[in-house]
Amino acid sequence: MDLKSYISGYVDGEGCFCISINKSSRHSFGWELRPSFSVSQNSDRSEVLRLLKQYFTCGSIRPDISDKTLKFEIRSINDLVHKVLPHFEDTKLISAKQNDFKYFAKACRLMYSKKHLTKDGFNGVLDLAFKMNPSGKRKHLRHEIKI
Amino acid sequence: MDLKSYISGYVDGEGCFCISINKSSRHSFGWELRPSFSVSQNSDRSEVLRLLKQYFTCGSIRPDISDKTLKFEIRSINDLVHKVLPHFEDTKLISAKQNDFKYFAKACRLMYSKKHLTKDGFNGVLDLAFKMNPSGKRKHLRHEIKI
Repeated sequence: MDLKSYISGYVDGEGCFCISINKSSRHSFGWELRPSFSVSQNSDRSEVLRLLKQYFTCGSIRPDISDKTLKFEIRSINDLVHKVLPHFEDTKLISAKQNDFKYFAKACRLMYSKKHLTKDGFNGVLDLAFKMNPSGKRKHLRHEIKI
Repeated sequence: MDLKSYISGYVDGEGCFCISINKSSRHSFGWELRPSFSVSQNSDRSEVLRLLKQYFTCGSIRPDISDKTLKFEIRSINDLVHKVLPHFEDTKLISAKQNDFKYFAKACRLMYSKKHLTKDGFNGVLDLAFKMNPSGKRKHLRHEIKI
């Protein structure tokens, strides 16, 4: 068993690379861009979430209020850039989720280098966010967020 | 990337080892016991299903009528015993799904050696089937099938 490959396989099925976009008066341009890597699981099968937390040496496991699952999530941009991106760049996903990951990685690095604090950088991250998870639901449309 | 470990990881999240139980006048004791290994996926992310079919060199991919997913499934008892069980015995699941797999493996081998054609063997497979996927829904209760 190669743990790195097992983890990429598990995440290819169950994981989510996501950039959520929320209105926020505390953030530049009135919007918060929040990248996260997460994996949800029924609480009776939480072994793998604990394994992921241990493997990535960061993140948290908490109940997901939207349903009866547990969610392992890494939100720290520092951890995403230094621990999550290198793993999935080394041991790649095989499904089309790999495309989401590539956009996610670009967005994380733009944010890590504070590029999103400029208008161009902000719009760049936003464009990447809207390319991701095309079949998922979004609270806001792209044109609502034009700054 | 170690493909075997990737596959065990993917299946640990998305796969299902299941023994369905259906009334059938064509089968011994009036019930059909049908073991299957399956993985479902949205049809826009079917790469991994094709990879599984190629890896196991058996099974089929077809639309799941219950929802808009595609399902890769292996039902042949011969393929289950000779191709599926050895993979997961060599490269083990990490989640509690491993328990389901162990019951599944026992049941498949009982059926492969035709033990389920005797009353004791049939009840043995049935007991294993009811130990599996305890959180899943069942069409029939155990006592309905006592033979």
